[in-house]
Amino acid sequence: MAASFYENPDLKRERQSCNFDKDEITNLIDGNVEKTKYRRELVEYILSDPSLKDPIPVEYLSHEEKYAAELKKACLLVQKMREPVPKEAKFETLRKRQENGKPLDIGVGPSSVILKEGNALGLHFVMFIPAIIGQGSTEQQNKWLPRALNLEIIGTYAQTELGHGTFLRGLETKATYDPDTKEFILETPSLSAYKWWPGGLGKTSNYAVVMAQLYTKGKCEGIHPFLVQLRDETTHEPLPGISVGEIGPKLGLNSNDNGYLGFDRVRIPRDQLLMKHSQVLEDGTYVKPKSTKLGYATMVYVRVFIVQDMAQLLRKAVTIATRYSCVRHQSELKPGEPEPQILDYKAQQNKLFPALAASFAFHFAAEKVWNLYHLATENIGKGDLQMLPDLHGMSCAMKALSTSETAKFVETLRQSCGGHGYMVSSGFPRLYGIATASETYEGENTVLWLQVARYLIKTRMDGSGGQSVAYLIGSDLPDNKAVDLSLDDLAMKELAEHGRQGMAPYDAWNHSAVQLIKAAQAHARYLVADCFVRSVKEDKLSGPFAELKTEHLSQLQAKYMELLSIIRGYAVNVVDSFDIRDEALGSVLGCWDGNAYQRLFDEALKSPLNRNAVHRESFEKYLKPLMKSKL
Amino acid sequence: MAASFYENPDLKRERQSCNFDKDEITNLIDGNVEKTKYRRELVEYILSDPSLKDPIPVEYLSHEEKYAAELKKACLLVQKMREPVPKEAKFETLRKRQENGKPLDIGVGPSSVILKEGNALGLHFVMFIPAIIGQGSTEQQNKWLPRALNLEIIGTYAQTELGHGTFLRGLETKATYDPDTKEFILETPSLSAYKWWPGGLGKTSNYAVVMAQLYTKGKCEGIHPFLVQLRDETTHEPLPGISVGEIGPKLGLNSNDNGYLGFDRVRIPRDQLLMKHSQVLEDGTYVKPKSTKLGYATMVYVRVFIVQDMAQLLRKAVTIATRYSCVRHQSELKPGEPEPQILDYKAQQNKLFPALAASFAFHFAAEKVWNLYHLATENIGKGDLQMLPDLHGMSCAMKALSTSETAKFVETLRQSCGGHGYMVSSGFPRLYGIATASETYEGENTVLWLQVARYLIKTRMDGSGGQSVAYLIGSDLPDNKAVDLSLDDLAMKELAEHGRQGMAPYDAWNHSAVQLIKAAQAHARYLVADCFVRSVKEDKLSGPFAELKTEHLSQLQAKYMELLSIIRGYAVNVVDSFDIRDEALGSVLGCWDGNAYQRLFDEALKSPLNRNAVHRESFEKYLKPLMKSKL
Repeated sequence: MAASFYENPDLKRERQSCNFDKDEITNLIDGNVEKTKYRRELVEYILSDPSLKDPIPVEYLSHEEKYAAELKKACLLVQKMREPVPKEAKFETLRKRQENGKPLDIGVGPSSVILKEGNALGLHFVMFIPAIIGQGSTEQQNKWLPRALNLEIIGTYAQTELGHGTFLRGLETKATYDPDTKEFILETPSLSAYKWWPGGLGKTSNYAVVMAQLYTKGKCEGIHPFLVQLRDETTHEPLPGISVGEIGPKLGLNSNDNGYLGFDRVRIPRDQLLMKHSQVLEDGTYVKPKSTKLGYATMVYVRVFIVQDMAQLLRKAVTIATRYSCVRHQSELKPGEPEPQILDYKAQQNKLFPALAASFAFHFAAEKVWNLYHLATENIGKGDLQMLPDLHGMSCAMKALSTSETAKFVETLRQSCGGHGYMVSSGFPRLYGIATASETYEGENTVLWLQVARYLIKTRMDGSGGQSVAYLIGSDLPDNKAVDLSLDDLAMKELAEHGRQGMAPYDAWNHSAVQLIKAAQAHARYLVADCFVRSVKEDKLSGPFAELKTEHLSQLQAKYMELLSIIRGYAVNVVDSFDIRDEALGSVLGCWDGNAYQRLFDEALKSPLNRNAVHRESFEKYLKPLMKSKL
Repeated sequence: MAASFYENPDLKRERQSCNFDKDEITNLIDGNVEKTKYRRELVEYILSDPSLKDPIPVEYLSHEEKYAAELKKACLLVQKMREPVPKEAKFETLRKRQENGKPLDIGVGPSSVILKEGNALGLHFVMFIPAIIGQGSTEQQNKWLPRALNLEIIGTYAQTELGHGTFLRGLETKATYDPDTKEFILETPSLSAYKWWPGGLGKTSNYAVVMAQLYTKGKCEGIHPFLVQLRDETTHEPLPGISVGEIGPKLGLNSNDNGYLGFDRVRIPRDQLLMKHSQVLEDGTYVKPKSTKLGYATMVYVRVFIVQDMAQLLRKAVTIATRYSCVRHQSELKPGEPEPQILDYKAQQNKLFPALAASFAFHFAAEKVWNLYHLATENIGKGDLQMLPDLHGMSCAMKALSTSETAKFVETLRQSCGGHGYMVSSGFPRLYGIATASETYEGENTVLWLQVARYLIKTRMDGSGGQSVAYLIGSDLPDNKAVDLSLDDLAMKELAEHGRQGMAPYDAWNHSAVQLIKAAQAHARYLVADCFVRSVKEDKLSGPFAELKTEHLSQLQAKYMELLSIIRGYAVNVVDSFDIRDEALGSVLGCWDGNAYQRLFDEALKSPLNRNAVHRESFEKYLKPLMKSKL
């Protein structure tokens, strides 16, 4: 795969002794053999294009330069995906796909191999277009979808405000219907009502789906989505009444121009309220949606997407740490012997292998919820919304667990690489920036945990929950004692106790929050573990999973140290089978050839500070005068 | 303190109902009333100087610009501290200090109020000068110390290499004595032997204390410190045979030009081996140090410094999160009532208040070890080294615990501020960059935990340990059951079990590592908690500490939720009493006036991307062509 003449001897030895079929895991992750082939060709197609390479690593650039450099790549990439693939054997699958009228993927997936700190066009594909499809009427879709798919307009999704995030009811942006002109008037009534955070909003997008409180006939009907033009399509200048800009540097994702947005009585036509589910008629009459649960579907979609993303991110982080731990020698295990590979230390294995396992667990979890999601949307088409609440509960739990665990694992893995993990060139700081952002966006995790807890408590009390909480109903509790314990011994008990003390239910809820969150976390772990076990039972893989069979899970704690030794034998080959190209991995420590020190050094030599031996200006103007000025 | 006409009404209300003396806490942290006065004047002296202000926030700059901008401030600051303080009443203490012949502090402490991402001159004060004092003979000190103190030369401390960090014995840099010329020949024998990481090494320093394997008379005598000139004192060009440069961007601390360094047979005079403890005579005879334990003292010094630093860092993070949680309103506690302050949610208090408590605990822990350190160095002067091993064990445990807990707390606190905590302008990303770096440097935490464990096990087996582990000796175990449990039930048992299975001791050690680390962590927690309790018993404070008296600690788990409510009443005033100026805090969310949204917005408007409504170049060159190119 990786074209490299050097191969670190420690890695080579591991690879020579590989005793399972790596492709099996690769195909499992991609979905099947064909998808692996398609992905490999697509990645090669992107990475072999010299115009998409960074002339200088983006981390050396200023905030403004970074935006410009990355937007350039994002635009060129989209353009490339729309053009015919050249007739080369190595791009055969891509060409066939195009010939069959199926476009190449231009979403965030393939772009992430060259855009590692976010993509200013990302929300256009992930949120803007899906919002038009999910919320727009057929008429609206016919009008806007071709333009959006064709990138004649570039959109984002503007929901969060300075003063409100996850608590949607608190959003302040107003859209008031004026029946005289048949328009909505968009207004930002206060500083805290400014939209804040939407990706690609700052400088890139000229349209947005804006979530605002709908007012008609003097009544507030709650949050609704409006399609709003922000900038002139020719000059890109903001339209009158629109105040839009970029929000500044963040912990990560700095190629994405997250933005702010304010409205000073901006008028839009009535038919730019997205009206698939609810409508405002010409006279201002409000028509309710059939079900308030319908909004759940979009949220489920995005959250499952995140779980999948976390599995992918974890695969990258584990690949880096495992390869580097194989290459790095340090300290002393047996007196008098050479320094061992750090991969041989149990304390190191204890940092790496739970993360490796979790990358599979989250993959399976996402797969399961995807399948349920597709079933549910099919049912919705038939008017059956029954699956939605349970799917919602499941996706909340899995989103919160996968993001928080992935962020923790990425940090543990970074630290397992010692000081070098702290270098941006290790890849870890970037991966952490993405992982930890997802702990907050699309439903802040603490809020999600409490929503899951509410669902659990309700299920326990009235038996109303769906499939994912069925194990909490009835007297027999087969293999879920941990959850049950948290629920009964901690959360329920505390709620009841507070009730006995005469506390109002909402006070009791607040006072039990810490325990309720723990119960919800236990539930999420159970869901993911259960799914993991079932997936392994289905036995799609013949390889290293043999070591992780169900019977071991029940005695995991005792078997743990033993399992570490067994997994040690597979680890390097398993991460190889994740099949992540060096360029996509973006880590000098985790490169396929294991030439970590040389690459670390080469990357440092790219620093503009190293162009000259002396940083002349600083020296002449500040350092020299300081050294020459005697006390 | 903070000059501001606006004061957020929620914060104002808290402050008006403050029922304890804030100065008491301020003075406790500073040391005493006089030190508070001195610090306040010093901070005001620095912050009131317009030449030390950032014309544009550093986070918008490129890697190179950032170095230049920050080095400028560092140099101007040192210069300022050496000049006479003007005759203004508000700088009275500073002036008196100078008149009494005592210089103003020019180390890292005061500089951190304007240099928030590290200081290229920092290691000169924290490591280079202390190394000359601690390792240099009287003669060497007389020769080099005045030049270093006067900043005629600027030095750093070069220990870590590409291939070796905490495991010092593995360092590869060689210093071979040549009796013919009475010189040492410094050599970097391989790529992995390059020095890598030393702060200020890349472009700033012209000298370094270099740790290298000393070879004389054909024998390796182990790691020793050498004073090496790296750059010409006039031109700043690297000297022949010296390869030096900057290592590139990191997760944090990017104002500091961490560097690499290689030697191609560089010769230095014999008397640049720092010879306080061991010597090489002219004929090449090696004279051993009296005790190998002497090196411990420097390590203890640096590690206690880190514990103190963590307490300070935690105070900043808690201040930001507490004030913002007071100001931010969100969601619903009681149906129908206005959105409550998020500080009223138990789940939020659960994120904030343990960190608040820990900031005190680490302060007391550092204070205690400082006192022991001073006593120990006094004893060393009298030839008594008895205290050193215990002090070393204690400082390892406290360094590892304080850094890992602080890093975790900072992340929890950041997330407690929702998405806004992810903004660089919140201050959290920077604080995290510092906290997590310290988990790795000056002894990687996992390695330190295992060192602590070794000390515990040895103590348990032969009773040899000092004061900090005295509770493990003998049959009566008063208030330390948790540690004992981890040790006996887990680590010792496992070690013994592995021994019974016929495992070699080093194998048994490796196989028990996970449990040994847990035991060491329990020990560290016990040490810090014990110190916390004792400090409160000494009763220097009359205020909110009343709530945290010893009798509560024993029932902490049960009292926990109750305590959260009580601390809620004090929290804002306690963080006020940390007395951190807005400029030093560096957070739009945590400012004294609570005007968080306005400041967040104002900070974003400084983005160079917001200078023009359209980012012309990106739009014309990439975005527009993309939007116009129909499929």
